[in-house]
Amino acid sequence: MHLDLPADGPRRGVLAEALREGVRSGRWGGGMRMPAYRSLAADLGLARSVVADAYAELVAEGWFVARQGSGTRVAEGVAAAGAQAPAVRAGGERVAYDLLQGKPDPASFPRAAWAASARRSLAAAPTEAFGPGDPQGRPELRRALAGYLARARGVRCGPENIVVCSGFANGLRLLASLRPRDWAVEAYGLPFHHGILDAAGVRPHPLPVDEDGARTEEIPARARTLLLTPAHQFPTGARLLPARRAAAVEWARATGGLIVEDDYDGEFRYDRKPVGALQGLAPGHVVHAGSLSKSLSPALRLGWLVLPDHLVERVLAAKGQRESWASALDQLALADFIECGAYDRHVRRMRLRYRDRRDRLVSVLAERAPRLRVTGIAAGLHAVVELPAGREAPVLTAARAAGLALDGLSSYRHPAARTAPREGPREGLVVGYAAPAEAAFGRALELLADIAARGAAER
Amino acid sequence: MHLDLPADGPRRGVLAEALREGVRSGRWGGGMRMPAYRSLAADLGLARSVVADAYAELVAEGWFVARQGSGTRVAEGVAAAGAQAPAVRAGGERVAYDLLQGKPDPASFPRAAWAASARRSLAAAPTEAFGPGDPQGRPELRRALAGYLARARGVRCGPENIVVCSGFANGLRLLASLRPRDWAVEAYGLPFHHGILDAAGVRPHPLPVDEDGARTEEIPARARTLLLTPAHQFPTGARLLPARRAAAVEWARATGGLIVEDDYDGEFRYDRKPVGALQGLAPGHVVHAGSLSKSLSPALRLGWLVLPDHLVERVLAAKGQRESWASALDQLALADFIECGAYDRHVRRMRLRYRDRRDRLVSVLAERAPRLRVTGIAAGLHAVVELPAGREAPVLTAARAAGLALDGLSSYRHPAARTAPREGPREGLVVGYAAPAEAAFGRALELLADIAARGAAER
Repeated sequence: MHLDLPADGPRRGVLAEALREGVRSGRWGGGMRMPAYRSLAADLGLARSVVADAYAELVAEGWFVARQGSGTRVAEGVAAAGAQAPAVRAGGERVAYDLLQGKPDPASFPRAAWAASARRSLAAAPTEAFGPGDPQGRPELRRALAGYLARARGVRCGPENIVVCSGFANGLRLLASLRPRDWAVEAYGLPFHHGILDAAGVRPHPLPVDEDGARTEEIPARARTLLLTPAHQFPTGARLLPARRAAAVEWARATGGLIVEDDYDGEFRYDRKPVGALQGLAPGHVVHAGSLSKSLSPALRLGWLVLPDHLVERVLAAKGQRESWASALDQLALADFIECGAYDRHVRRMRLRYRDRRDRLVSVLAERAPRLRVTGIAAGLHAVVELPAGREAPVLTAARAAGLALDGLSSYRHPAARTAPREGPREGLVVGYAAPAEAAFGRALELLADIAARGAAER
Repeated sequence: MHLDLPADGPRRGVLAEALREGVRSGRWGGGMRMPAYRSLAADLGLARSVVADAYAELVAEGWFVARQGSGTRVAEGVAAAGAQAPAVRAGGERVAYDLLQGKPDPASFPRAAWAASARRSLAAAPTEAFGPGDPQGRPELRRALAGYLARARGVRCGPENIVVCSGFANGLRLLASLRPRDWAVEAYGLPFHHGILDAAGVRPHPLPVDEDGARTEEIPARARTLLLTPAHQFPTGARLLPARRAAAVEWARATGGLIVEDDYDGEFRYDRKPVGALQGLAPGHVVHAGSLSKSLSPALRLGWLVLPDHLVERVLAAKGQRESWASALDQLALADFIECGAYDRHVRRMRLRYRDRRDRLVSVLAERAPRLRVTGIAAGLHAVVELPAGREAPVLTAARAAGLALDGLSSYRHPAARTAPREGPREGLVVGYAAPAEAAFGRALELLADIAARGAAER
């Protein structure tokens, strides 16, 4: 392997940059095997540890992948994608540590168990499964989901209430197309979801969010639909107060309104207070929406809406007869995966793993940034590190310069939200702790804590 | 098994209806195993052959499934779906023989080979494959497709020109959203596709279609986009004349127009004139669109657009960053399926099978309806049985009453198409011959030929 290294600068940094350039330029294709440390070190006249460190850096950044027994290889898709290299964010900063929220750990995907479910379900599938299929979703999957959701989330429904879709965004788009009027939304949420509602012509009414979740007692009179994350407010992490759950249901019953329950990470609860689905309180007034995107993998593009009886036909009409979107074979595999207990096992395993990561986040921050409060930690795959007013922007700038990818709390605030009394903090860091590679996680937390502590202290 | 049979009426018909009722009512769930002929015959005091015939009838209608070694079972989804039972069409007629176009043979899905590809690709996938993924599609699949399409269809592109989508309809919707102005379309086509263009606000300009395909020399001046099925006009079956291919390309070059090539069944050519993709003539002016829906199975929801360089970013923007739709795991499995040669083997095997079915269609019609012309038979999964003017509607009525599901040619005519001189026939039957179960195919053809011959002769 030919590499021209500039004569000056620290050897490890210089080598790492030359390696990045080899991938970035397309000179080395995805999947290409890199030389062993020893041989590259000998070629370049460097210490072996310098090469090992540079490789580790590129693995952490996503340029290389290392797998036991097959050495280090160029990652797929990095070279081909050119400017879209996953390790480089839109802003152009180099990302060494990805703490963006919203992603489960890709390294924990249960490959063997999923492959077994895929094989079994393919062998057992009726012939018609290979035909055009039912846009509502495979009956095998809807049966398995109805059982699972009842057991794990307290959802009350039959298979006939479920419409399989390709993820929450797809489901939200379908619902917004049917109900394009006024929606009450939480003052904090995913801008991507706000954009879907905007595109459908929805008029949003943000509800203030505090430590007990959205203030459902303040739903404006004109709202016909209410979008909620009751189990784990996104992204502040609050659990909706029981009285507020009741207020939401009461509103729906009294006005004929519809509640859309985004149960995006309901499986991952770490305290002793499991929060059942709101849907269980009022199945006729709540759409319960879930997906595999946090619990298993967003790569499968599988989600579901649990609908009140009167909405099933209307959602199917909006979905259309030909565009069933979700692969029927994946649906069959998931039905088997649930029925054989593999899904429960995976969720249990990941709950332990994510809880451990959460504990490490909390303890590193307690040690290195003891004055900062970490909230939203009773559940999920992310937490909020609160910051004093005016400190979020400089801390984010410093974090990004250090190679940390993460977002500020304020970017999740709905643009139409007004200031309300007794609201929670308005500034902070939203820290996703599920996805980083194990090797990079400890260093990422230390960097994060130091930058946040320093940034919060400066005035 | 308890069955109350009315005392009068032919035993086979009475038993078949009682069995249907058992499924329809939900009393017997999907997957339930039916008793052996012998034991049910003994219970009911019937001849064994009566039970065997009634079972066969329900299998042909889709209520039951029979698999070697596991007996006869209630089909999945028939009971649960209630009124949507696949064997009953919207109009309410009972369907015994499904000759609707557009479906490959579901019984020929290569389960073992696909399972092997799924297993291998899961084991080999890089960790990032289980993350959020690239809306353009997996690089492994785009590389495999670029190679396959070059080899099999003469398409000229790199992986960077391909955008993976969930089927042709999804691709057409994306393109229509980017080019909502005037489109020239073929006077015959899928009403479903016309509806997608209508919904996007496109103004359609139907081009007359004759035995040499669409008259591309008559593209109106205001058209900016041209939707074509050059390899096998849908549904008339014509191969676009080389001079008309050249005229289409010349139009695109001269006006800056865009051609959308719907290559829906390009793999299945039975004569000695393979028709390469139009895209190969002018990669900068043609979007080549294909999918697995005819070649493998519509259940996978996988398709692709091959785009000129200047359109890639715009299509990706229309697609959106989060809704990549197609399962990344299916994409990886397909990449392996193509690379290991299994896709080529499957296409070769199906080409022989469908050619054989086409031959049987032609010979049954030649024998029983010798005055009727069968056209569009050089390729694909369907043919057109031409009918004299005024005979399509009565023949369809008779066919449906006899339990044949199929459509008339006139229902594929664009509502805005005007009568043109020297056009092909305007009435006929569009006969899909790929999907019927082997046991039902011979009888379906005989019924079809007899009804068409009788109907065409009546004046």
